[in-house]
Amino acid sequence: MSRICMIGSGNVGTHLSLAMHNSGHQIVQVFSRNPQHARTLASKISAEPISDLKMIDSTSEIVILAVHDDVVRSVYKQIRKSIPNALLLHTAGSLYMEVFSGHSRYGVLWPVQTLTATKETDMHEVPFAIAGNTDAVMDQVRQLAESISDSVYTINDTQRLYLHLAATFASNFSNHMYTIAERITEAHNVPFDILIPLIRETAEKVRTLSPEEAQTGAAAREDTGTITRHLALLKNEPGMQEIYDLITRSIRISKKQEPKS
Amino acid sequence: MSRICMIGSGNVGTHLSLAMHNSGHQIVQVFSRNPQHARTLASKISAEPISDLKMIDSTSEIVILAVHDDVVRSVYKQIRKSIPNALLLHTAGSLYMEVFSGHSRYGVLWPVQTLTATKETDMHEVPFAIAGNTDAVMDQVRQLAESISDSVYTINDTQRLYLHLAATFASNFSNHMYTIAERITEAHNVPFDILIPLIRETAEKVRTLSPEEAQTGAAAREDTGTITRHLALLKNEPGMQEIYDLITRSIRISKKQEPKS
Repeated sequence: MSRICMIGSGNVGTHLSLAMHNSGHQIVQVFSRNPQHARTLASKISAEPISDLKMIDSTSEIVILAVHDDVVRSVYKQIRKSIPNALLLHTAGSLYMEVFSGHSRYGVLWPVQTLTATKETDMHEVPFAIAGNTDAVMDQVRQLAESISDSVYTINDTQRLYLHLAATFASNFSNHMYTIAERITEAHNVPFDILIPLIRETAEKVRTLSPEEAQTGAAAREDTGTITRHLALLKNEPGMQEIYDLITRSIRISKKQEPKS
Repeated sequence: MSRICMIGSGNVGTHLSLAMHNSGHQIVQVFSRNPQHARTLASKISAEPISDLKMIDSTSEIVILAVHDDVVRSVYKQIRKSIPNALLLHTAGSLYMEVFSGHSRYGVLWPVQTLTATKETDMHEVPFAIAGNTDAVMDQVRQLAESISDSVYTINDTQRLYLHLAATFASNFSNHMYTIAERITEAHNVPFDILIPLIRETAEKVRTLSPEEAQTGAAAREDTGTITRHLALLKNEPGMQEIYDLITRSIRISKKQEPKS
C-alpha cells in the first residue's frame, strides 16, 4: 500500500482518492487551490488538506496530478524539487508522459470514463490506460491501478493520444448527437424522453456487436427517400443539415467498404 | 382482446406479435413472402402462416403492416378490398398516416426502439408513438399499445416525422461515432473494449441530465490545443477530420448559445 499525495480535488481527484483510500492506500495529502475543496475531500479520507504546493509532503511515494491538462506542466515545475524520488503520475488522456521528462520516475494513470464528482461510480468497472517510463515504474503503476480497477490496459503514448481522440468521438460527439435530437424534439413539442430507451439500447449494442455491423437507418439502407425528407425538415437549420448530410455520406461510404459476408 | 393479422415477420413484426400474443391478443395470421419465415413466427403464437396476401382473413379486426416503409403503400393496395372494416396500422416512424387515406379506420403504432429479432426486448419498456385518423380509432390504438407497453405517446404526423429525424441523430448517428472510434482504436492496436464503459455512461447520463448540460470535452471547454492535436492526428483521414471539425464547431456554437446560469 502506498503513501499518496493527490493534487486536485475535482471529479478525477475525488473518485481516485476515494477508491484508493477504500483499497487501503494512505492518501497523505489533498491539494486544491480552493482550501474548502481540499478540506471537503481530505476529511473523507483522513488526509491533510493543503492549498499551497510548497506544503507538499516530501515523503510521499506517489504524487498524482489530477488537474486540467493545461496546468500539469506548471504544477510539475512547482513541485518537482520537493519530491525528487516520488513516482509522478498524471491522469490526462491527451498529454504525453514526457511532460515529466525531467523526473526520474513517472507515468500515466488515465481513467477512461466520464466521472462526475456528485455521482458514485464503481471504479472497479472503470478501464484505466496506464504508462510508465521504465519497466519497474510500469509494474508499480499497474499494481496501483489494479488495486482499484478490474480493467487495466498498458498502452504507449501514441496509442493513448489516439484513444483519447477515439473517446472524443465515442462520448463527446455522440452526446452532441443527443443534443441535436433534443433540440429537434423540443422545437416540435415532443418529449425527448421517448428517445432515452433508444439511446441506451444503441449504446448497449456495442457490447455484443461491432458498431459497424450494428449500423441501421436510412443512410445504411441507402433509403434516399427518407434522407431527402429528413434534409427537407432541416432546411431552416443549416448547421444541423450540414451535419446530417456529412454523417449520412460517411455511413454510406462505410457500408460500401464493408466486407461482404 | 383483438383478432390481429400481422403482415411481416421481421424484427418489428416478430417482437410485436410475441408481445401481443403474450398480452392475450389473438394473432390469427402471420404473413411473410418467405413461407419458412411465416411458419417460424406463426408456430410460436398459434397463428396461421400465409405467404399470399390474397389469403388474408377478412374477419381480422386489426391488420398491422410491419413491413419496410417503401412497401407499405403497395401492400395496402393489395389488401384494402379484403379488409374494408379492419383497423389498419403501420409501424413506420418516417411515414405519414395518410398513406392509408382511402381507408375508413387507420393509424400508426411505431415502437421507438431498435429491435433485433434474435434479441429479447421487454416491450413494456419500449415507447410507442401512436396516431389514429379519428378519436375512436385513437382510443383503440392506445388500448392496443398500452396492452403491451408502459410508455405510449400520442403524437401527430408532423411530430412523428421530426421524432424520426431526432431518432436518426440519437441512434444511427451516435452509432456512427462509435464506428469511427472503433476504426481509430483498431488502426492503432488499442482494444475498442476500453471505450465501452464510457459509451454506456455517456448514454446513461441523459436519463438525469440534458445532453446540452452533460456536454464535456475539448470542444465544450474551448481547448484549442487539444482540438489542434486531434485534427493533426486525423490528417490522413480527411473524412473523419471533416466530421471532427464540423461537430466541434457545432458544440462550440451550442455552448455559446447556452443560457448562463
